Order: sequence, then structure tokens, then C-alpha cells
Amino acid sequence: MSLLPPQITRAIEEFSKLPGIGPKSAERLTFHLLRSSRASPENLGRALIDLKNELKYCTACQMVTLQEQCAVCTDTGRDHALILVVENPLDVVAFERTSYKGVYHVLHGVLSPIDGMGPEQLKLRELVARCKDGAVQEIVVATNPDVEGEATASYIQQQLGAVVPKITRLAHGLPMGADIEFADQMTLKEALIGRRSLR
Amino acid sequence: MSLLPPQITRAIEEFSKLPGIGPKSAERLTFHLLRSSRASPENLGRALIDLKNELKYCTACQMVTLQEQCAVCTDTGRDHALILVVENPLDVVAFERTSYKGVYHVLHGVLSPIDGMGPEQLKLRELVARCKDGAVQEIVVATNPDVEGEATASYIQQQLGAVVPKITRLAHGLPMGADIEFADQMTLKEALIGRRSLR
Repeated sequence: MSLLPPQITRAIEEFSKLPGIGPKSAERLTFHLLRSSRASPENLGRALIDLKNELKYCTACQMVTLQEQCAVCTDTGRDHALILVVENPLDVVAFERTSYKGVYHVLHGVLSPIDGMGPEQLKLRELVARCKDGAVQEIVVATNPDVEGEATASYIQQQLGAVVPKITRLAHGLPMGADIEFADQMTLKEALIGRRSLR
Repeated sequence: MSLLPPQITRAIEEFSKLPGIGPKSAERLTFHLLRSSRASPENLGRALIDLKNELKYCTACQMVTLQEQCAVCTDTGRDHALILVVENPLDVVAFERTSYKGVYHVLHGVLSPIDGMGPEQLKLRELVARCKDGAVQEIVVATNPDVEGEATASYIQQQLGAVVPKITRLAHGLPMGADIEFADQMTLKEALIGRRSLR
């Protein structure tokens, strides 16, 4: 690789550190940026350097924001006794497209000992602190329905079960538009357990 | 998306301009950079801003380099009468792993009218200029074996057929370790046409 100038190998190296980008994709991206008229290395570079600039985390819910508190937490029209716990900021964006009217808590990850993510690495202490005054009526745990997400949900139940009157989990079942024929058995089992009476 | 601070949406936008990275991957990469301890947005950002810094193109073969001429072109031990024409700098890196002892010419693309790549956009004029003094004995066209690569090879044959004694193309055929059963018919046809007698 000594044939390539060091600034090129450095860009390739840094790209390779990203998830899902191997050495070959990193090379392709780097040379694309050198040639492309639409994407420019300077624009992407500057955007990345500015990324953490002035970026704050909401002191209440830990959402990324520019102020001390995010737009949701400062909105007095929302139900502050209802907290939806999510893994990351993009989950907040997803739930904001629904008509959810409570507030959020962003964990910035899930419990995953293999990846070195213990309770200390997550914003769990902040969640416990928010519930201490007894004003929170319900916590909806909206971590992903996988092993790590379920472990995180159990941990929250253990930590806050005695403090918060109601701790719930998002419903499991068939996604809208799904085909029962192709649904996996775990999903069908959960859909049966969670069946609701027709009104 | 107004929930996300502008520096985050800007990084997502710039990532989305890269080939093979859609809006969802761009979001994932951006948030990965925010959290990761291994990859940092500052390092990648600075590498990209420096990418074109002091980067030169070899005045002879158009390879990326830091000097006026690249290491291959300044090497007097190599055969300067044999030019291997490739699409991009990574192809040079690939051929340098073989025992090839001639020099190169990097086109920085292939003829592709749909993508706005005509002869003017490629380093074809520079190739013609290199062959003018009659010292070049052979040009090996090593563009990829696809429609654009073949069109570029024909164009080079037209332009230089009268000036350079020998213009060749890389052999087509079965790659080493391939399974004939699974080879496509075009490859098998080319492998038959190009068959060689056993010594």
C-alpha cells in the first residue's frame, strides 16, 4: 500500500473503523470523494468535525439537543408522568411521528456485556434519578425486541419496580401488513399471548 | 427530523451522498461516530479535509503521488516502453502485487456517456501525448471486462493503433480456483477462444 500517498491511506483507515465498512468499501468511498462532483471530502470532513460542536444532551431525557433541555422536555403540554425509554435518539424521532404525548428517556445503548456495555455505560442512573420524586406514573420500555433489549427491560424493572407504579413493555406481535404464513414462531406465539378482544 | 440538531442532520446528509450509503446507513454511521471510542468524527473529518491537501497526480502516468512523478515512473529499472492502462489508482496497487515490470497510465474513469464521462473527462489526451515520440512498444489495456471497459479499450485502439506497434487487452477466461460448472457462458466462450497449448 506504500504506493498510495499517506493522506489517502489515512482516509481509508478511518473509514474502515465505521460499522459495515470494510477495507474495500473504504477504498471505494475515498476514491469516490476524490473524483465526485456531488460529494466533497471537505464538506463531509467539516460536517464531521462540527458534529460534536455545541452538541448537548438534554439534562432531563439525554436526547441530543442544542439547548439545556430538548423541545419535548420543555413542552408543558406533554405528559411528564409518562416516560418512554428508548435505546437511541433516532428512536425518539421515530416515535415523534406517532401521536405519543409523553416524554422520553434515551439510554444511548443497551446492556451488552460482550460489547462492554454495562449499566454504568448507559444513562440508567439518570433514569432512576428522574423517578425518585414519585411523580412518574408509568415507564414504557421501548428497547428493541432482542436479547440485549429484553435484558435491559428486566434491569429497568428490577431497579424501578418499587418506585414507579407501572412499568410496561411495547407490545410484541405481527407488524402491520405482515403475512401470517411467513411470520416466525416467536412472533406468532407473542401475538397469541397478547391477543386483544374485538370491540 | 427537526428534532435532531442541524450538525447531526448535516453529517447524515453528507454521508448520504456517498455511493452505497442510503439515509438509514448515514444515520447509523453518524450516531456511531458520536458514541464510538474507536472511530472519532474529528479524526475522520480531519483525514477527509487533508485528503486533497498536497496530493498531486504523476505528470507521466497520472497516478496519485506526493511528488512530480510517482515511484514507478522515476524507477529506471522498469520497462518504460510497456504501458499498462488502468481505470483507477487502486488498479495500480493491485498490479504492483504481481511481478509486472512495465509502467502504468491511470485514466481516472472509463468512457460512460450516461455518467457524463467522455474522452475529455479521462486522462486519454495525456496517454496519446506519451506515445507521440514512438518510444512506446506496447500498450496493455487493463480496463474492467464490462461494456464501458470494452468501449474504452476500442477507443484507445482507434486513437493509438497507428502510433503504437502493439496494443493488447488482458486475457479473459476462468479465474484461478473457479468452478467450470458455475462459470457463465460468456466467460466459458472467452476461455475457449483464448485457449493455450500445453507445453
